Amino acid sequence: MPKVKVGIIGASGYTASELIRLIHNHPAISIEFLVGNSKAGQEASEIYDYLKFADLPKVQKLSEVNFSKVKAVFCCLPHGESAKVIAKLPKKLKVIDLSSDFRINDAKLYKEFYGSKLNEKFKSEVAYGLSEIYASDIKKKRIIACPGCYPTSILLPLIPLVKNKKACPGEIIIDAKTGISGAGRKVIENNLFCEINENSFAYNPTKHRHLSEIIEQLDIKLENVQFTPQVIPTSRGIISSIYITSENSAAELTKFLAKHYAKAKFIRVNESGDLPKLRNVVGTNFCEISIIDTNIKGKKLIISAIDNLTKGSSGQALQNFNLMFKQKEDAGLTNLATYP
Amino acid sequence: MPKVKVGIIGASGYTASELIRLIHNHPAISIEFLVGNSKAGQEASEIYDYLKFADLPKVQKLSEVNFSKVKAVFCCLPHGESAKVIAKLPKKLKVIDLSSDFRINDAKLYKEFYGSKLNEKFKSEVAYGLSEIYASDIKKKRIIACPGCYPTSILLPLIPLVKNKKACPGEIIIDAKTGISGAGRKVIENNLFCEINENSFAYNPTKHRHLSEIIEQLDIKLENVQFTPQVIPTSRGIISSIYITSENSAAELTKFLAKHYAKAKFIRVNESGDLPKLRNVVGTNFCEISIIDTNIKGKKLIISAIDNLTKGSSGQALQNFNLMFKQKEDAGLTNLATYP
Amino acid sequence: MPKVKVGIIGASGYTASELIRLIHNHPAISIEFLVGNSKAGQEASEIYDYLKFADLPKVQKLSEVNFSKVKAVFCCLPHGESAKVIAKLPKKLKVIDLSSDFRINDAKLYKEFYGSKLNEKFKSEVAYGLSEIYASDIKKKRIIACPGCYPTSILLPLIPLVKNKKACPGEIIIDAKTGISGAGRKVIENNLFCEINENSFAYNPTKHRHLSEIIEQLDIKLENVQFTPQVIPTSRGIISSIYITSENSAAELTKFLAKHYAKAKFIRVNESGDLPKLRNVVGTNFCEISIIDTNIKGKKLIISAIDNLTKGSSGQALQNFNLMFKQKEDAGLTNLATYP
Amino acid sequence: MPKVKVGIIGASGYTASELIRLIHNHPAISIEFLVGNSKAGQEASEIYDYLKFADLPKVQKLSEVNFSKVKAVFCCLPHGESAKVIAKLPKKLKVIDLSSDFRINDAKLYKEFYGSKLNEKFKSEVAYGLSEIYASDIKKKRIIACPGCYPTSILLPLIPLVKNKKACPGEIIIDAKTGISGAGRKVIENNLFCEINENSFAYNPTKHRHLSEIIEQLDIKLENVQFTPQVIPTSRGIISSIYITSENSAAELTKFLAKHYAKAKFIRVNESGDLPKLRNVVGTNFCEISIIDTNIKGKKLIISAIDNLTKGSSGQALQNFNLMFKQKEDAGLTNLATYP
Repeated sequence: MPKVKVGIIGASGYTASELIRLIHNHPAISIEFLVGNSKAGQEASEIYDYLKFADLPKVQKLSEVNFSKVKAVFCCLPHGESAKVIAKLPKKLKVIDLSSDFRINDAKLYKEFYGSKLNEKFKSEVAYGLSEIYASDIKKKRIIACPGCYPTSILLPLIPLVKNKKACPGEIIIDAKTGISGAGRKVIENNLFCEINENSFAYNPTKHRHLSEIIEQLDIKLENVQFTPQVIPTSRGIISSIYITSENSAAELTKFLAKHYAKAKFIRVNESGDLPKLRNVVGTNFCEISIIDTNIKGKKLIISAIDNLTKGSSGQALQNFNLMFKQKEDAGLTNLATYP
Repeated sequence: MPKVKVGIIGASGYTASELIRLIHNHPAISIEFLVGNSKAGQEASEIYDYLKFADLPKVQKLSEVNFSKVKAVFCCLPHGESAKVIAKLPKKLKVIDLSSDFRINDAKLYKEFYGSKLNEKFKSEVAYGLSEIYASDIKKKRIIACPGCYPTSILLPLIPLVKNKKACPGEIIIDAKTGISGAGRKVIENNLFCEINENSFAYNPTKHRHLSEIIEQLDIKLENVQFTPQVIPTSRGIISSIYITSENSAAELTKFLAKHYAKAKFIRVNESGDLPKLRNVVGTNFCEISIIDTNIKGKKLIISAIDNLTKGSSGQALQNFNLMFKQKEDAGLTNLATYP
Repeated sequence: MPKVKVGIIGASGYTASELIRLIHNHPAISIEFLVGNSKAGQEASEIYDYLKFADLPKVQKLSEVNFSKVKAVFCCLPHGESAKVIAKLPKKLKVIDLSSDFRINDAKLYKEFYGSKLNEKFKSEVAYGLSEIYASDIKKKRIIACPGCYPTSILLPLIPLVKNKKACPGEIIIDAKTGISGAGRKVIENNLFCEINENSFAYNPTKHRHLSEIIEQLDIKLENVQFTPQVIPTSRGIISSIYITSENSAAELTKFLAKHYAKAKFIRVNESGDLPKLRNVVGTNFCEISIIDTNIKGKKLIISAIDNLTKGSSGQALQNFNLMFKQKEDAGLTNLATYP
Repeated sequence: MPKVKVGIIGASGYTASELIRLIHNHPAISIEFLVGNSKAGQEASEIYDYLKFADLPKVQKLSEVNFSKVKAVFCCLPHGESAKVIAKLPKKLKVIDLSSDFRINDAKLYKEFYGSKLNEKFKSEVAYGLSEIYASDIKKKRIIACPGCYPTSILLPLIPLVKNKKACPGEIIIDAKTGISGAGRKVIENNLFCEINENSFAYNPTKHRHLSEIIEQLDIKLENVQFTPQVIPTSRGIISSIYITSENSAAELTKFLAKHYAKAKFIRVNESGDLPKLRNVVGTNFCEISIIDTNIKGKKLIISAIDNLTKGSSGQALQNFNLMFKQKEDAGLTNLATYP
């Protein structure tokens, strides 16, 4: 079978690195080009040392690329830059975008959280890339706006429950813990080993940008939800405690969600009472979910774990590629956690 | 000034080790004996390697100890054993107990959480050792029941707020993260490096034993509070997110609490908007607290950080000793965090 | 293509877990049974939580297994037990043994390091499973004795250099650092998170058992080599500093070794001056090697990095399987490091 | 007793932070000023968050300081800057310098390793601040050049052995492992959590600048010594394997060194066969040393562990202050390791 040729734009961040890792084990993709304007001319292994073990094209400038060779591009650029670059790409090219530029529909909401004007030019061509929820849309659209890492871990359990009126759309309290790679490879003091090691702290507890996706996807308001992101000293992973109000028992909610996701290869709803452990999903595209009754009447606790860079970003992007290009949904995504 | 002679019973656990570390820098205490029945005859450094740098008595059997030499003992035995041993000690001896055996007053509540009968023999002689709340009681009583680590981080902000009707005594959601030393030096698979490293998970989310202290101290019921303890991959530290209902603004609550603790040397209520970082308090006896408005009307978030072994256990035990023996309250407890 | 059916004996250790992880991505193997006498009747995921995402047979007793269904077994039992169990297996069954029971040929050397009698019964059927060195032997023999993790990292560079007289067979100083999974999943105090985190120490510095393999494979004597193993606080990985005496320059040695391993898929000899980083090889079957001139005349430093559980154990075992069963040598072993 | 007033110049690095931590527990020092030109006007806690728990002066510009108030300054500036600033200070002021600017005597050696001209202006006023070796000199001189962290761990065992002809001054191989704080608080990609976590690697293996101190202090040549520094994923600590040639047995060397350091409060030579563990010394001013016979005739292995920021830098600086100002040698330095 001939491989589908793709390109990656924005080669220097963790999401590009993770995509390369995953595509390396995909049976039907070949990477035709890597774009990184500031790193043009370098080998990929000069950016990520471990890529010395892979066979990859050199990093190019965007202007040097021949787009006619590829069927799709993965766009790993930062917020703001991504929409600008995508606007310049050939108009038929499929684009899987890992930035936040196309995640939000509502221009006012976007303005409120991102402080800038929403690019609405491609609106009709965009699908929100939460694979299990929007698969049919993803198969049809040209541009996929892959969700943020936090929203992925949070919306996978919440959308089916809230949309099907199993959980109230209000008083949702989310206390989410993340490994530090969620902050990207930014060279700032806060990301130094000595600052994160043996440390943990909440940050941005009222208006983290990812909250805008949660609000729009659940069709709720800011005052319905508290989202407290927190750093824990791991490289990867997000584990979210989601406290919701529901008249259903945890057992009923679990049963409903397990049935809802019965055919979803990457979602596991624990029916045994097990609680998710971050390590189970690190490096994988899985999402592990448990629901338990809290001591407070009507309050249920959902615990949801993913890898922020895999299911929360590049893994889901590849899953979306698989949906768009009629590949097996788990092609390139079959690996288990590396344990220990 | 002659030093106060003390003994430590139960020398093999982390709380004893931490006490020894702290007492080592206390200007007015000398350790007269270390009791550890299973380790009798050993040097302390055979139990904790780093103690080779301290000058300590050999570990003894309880039966070998001459109690007439000491003014107080710190009892670092496990739950259940502690009360039994304390019952055999000279009746006038001051006892600072780090176990849970005397923390609870209500026999029914104790039974519910511990599954056994509460020892009520010494009831009139016991003070609950939450130093900043019960200082006057601690100065008068013979036996101090030092609080659990989680309750310390949670009750220090909540007791003043709930007792003074600044916060509702219901719908309290506590999402607390702890380093693994909270599990003690138990040699079980769950505590292995390879199980904890790069991992995080909730455990025991409906009836952790420490919840009983929270319920009794706040005078609330089990259905008023959800307590979700979670492991993060650090050696030490507890950082708790406490979601409460209050008609007051975070600014008002902060101001109230800051004033309430104005003279408390170890409590810092951040009035600047800073959020606590675990690392700031690790190895110290400090508790750092911030309060913020959440997005949900009436819901406030308190974040509270302590070191589970210091303020959450042995540090508070030493602070209680200082109160009992008219020492400076921070004697032996002045050190800052070792950073980085 | 029909899959080759295999069984795994000794399902509870890290090497079995790693084998299962790797085989999960192998296109041509199916796991027919898992044997674990003490865990018989359990799901694999009860032993390793992350295996809930794989489809595996339940753990069985050895006595329950129908060996006629499989072409090969991987034996992941501890030292001593392995030889006993292998003796009871069908005499034609191919066996890939991850223990040390068949690694040593010399009975006296074995006795010296293991304190017991060498099992010489299968001697003629055994190959030492250092894949790149003994490939032709591995293809022919029935039982493969997979090397220890330290020897793998050390012998891959040393055997070609010493055997081809590029390096002296004396005064070899090896200072090797290992992640703690090298100690296995043993539930002992030394392996607790709190003992290893932020720690590092040498252990067993004169007669580590793996030294016997180094001595025998290089055909040298104990007094020719110093091997100092050291723990560093990582889950995985071995990075060895090997100080040798050689009249050749580092550049010459590098060139020689790079040429020697030119066709070896898993061995990378850095010709650029790069030094190996542990993270590049963790989770992979790669061995990364650099050689540099030291300041001391005639002394060269080889730095060699592998993953102790992959190339150092289960990955090499699978590579040996591939050689034995005419699979692509890297089948199931193509993954890159999970970075970060 | 009135406190000795001191100032700290260069307030933004780890060494200043560590000095502040240690002085906080010193009974007889008060910090009169903190100088940090780029941070002038800030609170110390804006640079190091944990300092919110200390009572410190605001950071000032050098030009704002009134030096007449202080008896000594600690100079925590980077290499090159330090000598320039010290040249401008009052000529009688005692200076404890933590940079490398005055560590080397030989101008040629300095040029070779630092690439610039040695400042020889204050030569007669400088003592090399390896406290246990040069105590009498330190007491008399005005400027103390505190040793580098690696040289401290290496020279403490080697100087007595080499100078007393117990060990040969040639073929010394040093394989030293360091926590990442040794690289300072530099905001570079290499120091990010995600780069260091679960990683280890050698760097700069032929001409690390600290090698110049080792060469000069031992009075040897570059070709006599190989020094391979390596990063391990801890915040703090250095543990060095030092392979030497000696006709004496390890037992004899141990006995000699133990006797040599019998009165040294901070040096522990293990006579029991124990090997040093990094954690035992982290956060403390101790140096733990063991010597063992290797398998190679005449080769001995010294293992030496210190905290790079305490004994390897600020702790030793404070010890030197104590010597200079007739304080108890361990004033401010009595704390044990925080364990776990």
